[in-house]
Amino acid sequence: MNFTHETEFKVRDYECDLQAVVNNGVYQNYLEHARHELLLAQGIDFSAVTRAGINLVVVRAELDYRDSLTSGDRFVVRSRVERNSRLRFDFVQHIYRLPDERLMLEARITGTALNQRGRPFVAEGLERLFDDTGQP
Amino acid sequence: MNFTHETEFKVRDYECDLQAVVNNGVYQNYLEHARHELLLAQGIDFSAVTRAGINLVVVRAELDYRDSLTSGDRFVVRSRVERNSRLRFDFVQHIYRLPDERLMLEARITGTALNQRGRPFVAEGLERLFDDTGQP
Amino acid sequence: MNFTHETEFKVRDYECDLQAVVNNGVYQNYLEHARHELLLAQGIDFSAVTRAGINLVVVRAELDYRDSLTSGDRFVVRSRVERNSRLRFDFVQHIYRLPDERLMLEARITGTALNQRGRPFVAEGLERLFDDTGQP
Amino acid sequence: MNFTHETEFKVRDYECDLQAVVNNGVYQNYLEHARHELLLAQGIDFSAVTRAGINLVVVRAELDYRDSLTSGDRFVVRSRVERNSRLRFDFVQHIYRLPDERLMLEARITGTALNQRGRPFVAEGLERLFDDTGQP
Repeated sequence: MNFTHETEFKVRDYECDLQAVVNNGVYQNYLEHARHELLLAQGIDFSAVTRAGINLVVVRAELDYRDSLTSGDRFVVRSRVERNSRLRFDFVQHIYRLPDERLMLEARITGTALNQRGRPFVAEGLERLFDDTGQP
Repeated sequence: MNFTHETEFKVRDYECDLQAVVNNGVYQNYLEHARHELLLAQGIDFSAVTRAGINLVVVRAELDYRDSLTSGDRFVVRSRVERNSRLRFDFVQHIYRLPDERLMLEARITGTALNQRGRPFVAEGLERLFDDTGQP
Repeated sequence: MNFTHETEFKVRDYECDLQAVVNNGVYQNYLEHARHELLLAQGIDFSAVTRAGINLVVVRAELDYRDSLTSGDRFVVRSRVERNSRLRFDFVQHIYRLPDERLMLEARITGTALNQRGRPFVAEGLERLFDDTGQP
Repeated sequence: MNFTHETEFKVRDYECDLQAVVNNGVYQNYLEHARHELLLAQGIDFSAVTRAGINLVVVRAELDYRDSLTSGDRFVVRSRVERNSRLRFDFVQHIYRLPDERLMLEARITGTALNQRGRPFVAEGLERLFDDTGQP
């Protein structure tokens, strides 16, 4: 699937809910951390970008839950970036349990950059995520 | 939009991240709580259902983020249930800031019921959420 | 016990862990929200104070867990402020389940104000929390 | 300080709040995960113990916050167990930032085991955490 980045995690028990599986909202935390690690690997520090007055925000999230992670599970989030439009970019992110590589979740998270007036703009620093085919 | 249920919230500061707005993952927490309150109003106690061996799970989430909630904001989650298929049901959920009623987020959360062997099934108790038009 | 402020909550299911009770870390969230509501009632907006470059931080937390909140429980956090030293203030906070008023948790949270260089200082605006007896 | 176990972490941006540092409540999450990893290394699986009807619960938490973790920080939680009384055990836990080994937080978390009727009892499996000097 041509993922360009991978972050490994282990489920923490406080992330599990009264069904004894990872709560559905926690997956967005995992995905966010994996996106920020991908950005960092490309030289983009989310926290520094924020302090500089640029807000990278999520405008749409689609998550397909395939199976449930539970206490003790190790897993990876594999991610890649695709250009969605001039102003929007998509993170395609899959979660695979380890070591059996079972697909647990598929997501497409659409983001944009907001300037200090809250308007979407083309943040120069982000262009390095794409080559001229729109692929990283 | 024919919502059938409404839960009111106030942003708590620990829900805000280093952008000083509510973190994108927290909205799934708000939506989940609002769904469980809707179910409770229909006589379905999520926790009791879980103890009885039925797991109500999210299989798909679509969230469109329109604007950001921030410290001090009050808001409502308005929800309704639609039948998606014999085994699946959709919660349509909107978040409106108060008092200006600005739309902050639109979501469609698809759920199903899993029996004790982890297989989707028609949970009788849930049928009360729908009349024969597929509307609650 | 001379509490000066009260915030009411209802347990949300995502706050419960695989023991089916509220996770022990979540109580600090409840207590923080109650402290910020107390401050707000005294005209001190935590978020605005932060933007102004003053960081109100917790330097010590003592929590005695008496009993466990669980799905569906309503409860109140009752709080008061005591001067601990020239630079430190204590929030004494109790959690009572409703409607039976059972004591669930007792806490003493010690805070201080840090200036822009990260040094503790006497923030004038906070002095309004105390009268000259050191009591609010 | 004779710690017997160490778990390494990296701060995730969703754990940071509007002060742009790790929220004070999140440290309890870190400490819990580190305790469960310590238990697991001793052959005690928290989730399995819970399913067996034994609830390991926190009865008291003391946390001294020395400095703030922030975006990008790596750190370790170092832990050891001490017998507190016949029925209670203490986890002494320190958090050190990496690579500079700066002490960020000191905690003493007191726990006990509850049987199926919610009464504290001596859980045989936990005795392996201590030798006859009360030290692990």
